[in-house]
Amino acid sequence: MHETGHLTVIGLGPGPQDWTTPAALRILREATDLIGYGPYLDRVELQPHQTRHASDNRVELDRARHALELTARGRKVAVVSSGDPGVFAMAAAVFEALEAGDPAWRGLDIRVEPGITAVLGVASRLGAPLGHDFCVISLSDILKPWAVIEQRLEAAARGDFVIALYNPASRTRRDQIARALDCLRAIKGDAALTVFARAVGTHEERVIVSTLGEADADLVDMRTLVLVGSSRTRRIERPGELPAFIYTPRFVEGA
Amino acid sequence: MHETGHLTVIGLGPGPQDWTTPAALRILREATDLIGYGPYLDRVELQPHQTRHASDNRVELDRARHALELTARGRKVAVVSSGDPGVFAMAAAVFEALEAGDPAWRGLDIRVEPGITAVLGVASRLGAPLGHDFCVISLSDILKPWAVIEQRLEAAARGDFVIALYNPASRTRRDQIARALDCLRAIKGDAALTVFARAVGTHEERVIVSTLGEADADLVDMRTLVLVGSSRTRRIERPGELPAFIYTPRFVEGA
Repeated sequence: MHETGHLTVIGLGPGPQDWTTPAALRILREATDLIGYGPYLDRVELQPHQTRHASDNRVELDRARHALELTARGRKVAVVSSGDPGVFAMAAAVFEALEAGDPAWRGLDIRVEPGITAVLGVASRLGAPLGHDFCVISLSDILKPWAVIEQRLEAAARGDFVIALYNPASRTRRDQIARALDCLRAIKGDAALTVFARAVGTHEERVIVSTLGEADADLVDMRTLVLVGSSRTRRIERPGELPAFIYTPRFVEGA
Repeated sequence: MHETGHLTVIGLGPGPQDWTTPAALRILREATDLIGYGPYLDRVELQPHQTRHASDNRVELDRARHALELTARGRKVAVVSSGDPGVFAMAAAVFEALEAGDPAWRGLDIRVEPGITAVLGVASRLGAPLGHDFCVISLSDILKPWAVIEQRLEAAARGDFVIALYNPASRTRRDQIARALDCLRAIKGDAALTVFARAVGTHEERVIVSTLGEADADLVDMRTLVLVGSSRTRRIERPGELPAFIYTPRFVEGA
């Protein structure tokens, strides 16, 4: 008989160490096996009793299966994501692997621990751009056809949501963000505030605020989150060198 | 001359103490003045040097002005929200008060610290329902007309987003959630998985999983978050008494 294993999918948050929850830190400490994308595991200090399983960022499903196999063998597994593990991260991959895998895996102790997802970190640096209804959309067309992405962008624009775009580009995937901004512009017009927030919370943080009409898609890379305001998202200018605040009021006239 | 004050809007997360980030805990420790809705301040242990300013939950703008006045007088102010302060919480109110208030306030040191917003906590208990694109909508029509809410619900349904509904009901506001579910049903049909998650992470937690066709709006109260799946959100049944997992796959056929 094996000792009972368990698997928890955790998120470290978008960057700063003090954005990782105490609950996630406890899971990390108690794990026997840490498994994840190499650069995320690099953010965790390994303890002597722990085994590290680092992998590339294109192999989520293999990694998920490996995590489930280790758990079935009695290991205490932490699957390590950045941000929140349930938002375009490892949690969905683990459940995909679970559903398609050995039926016995369904009896395993599998949990998810929430984390700060990237858009919340970005919003906190700007002010309160998510003060009103918002959408979160991944621009990666590796796993879904572009037609689905475009349908969602149009729906989000017609609903006048604040829109957060995850995975807007990669080294090889450069066109999507330009096409997405075109799609949004065609419905929302040029004026909507548009933010490119790169590597928020790290020493490489760079935040560029412009409008849909002026936004330059070439400035977007795989570490950038793009935020497009609703028709009501606005700036509060501040004295001297202080950056403007960006926020979306809670109220809409007519209530 | 006053000592320089500062104001930080923080979020405690949805409930469990170990979901509050170390960054938010540090802000709480260093503040001279804690200001917020009473039940949220009750979650914080007051230190001898700290002043507590509790207020009712209908006075966000007054509370925000008070926080800015205290900051202008040199106090170190923590405005305390539940969840993430930028998602239907105090951050937007602070910027509304800032924009409408004393122009000198714009030079103040004002920050926002992110937190775990309720939908991330709920999602973590279910599996990975946010594994794909999603929308977050407040159903409160105190600050926006119902027509805007309905327009957004329709857009979210047409885009086949997973939909999280915050503020679905209160003691006096009982109709909105029934109308919202009707609106979603008319576009999405009856089959979409629908979750009522109440007080997640507390000892009063209660999670009810049904479908749009069977969901009973009477079970929703002000502490409930409602999650409606996309057409692809699915259940993984498990042996014995184990609750099913709910997740939304990352992939859509055709990519």
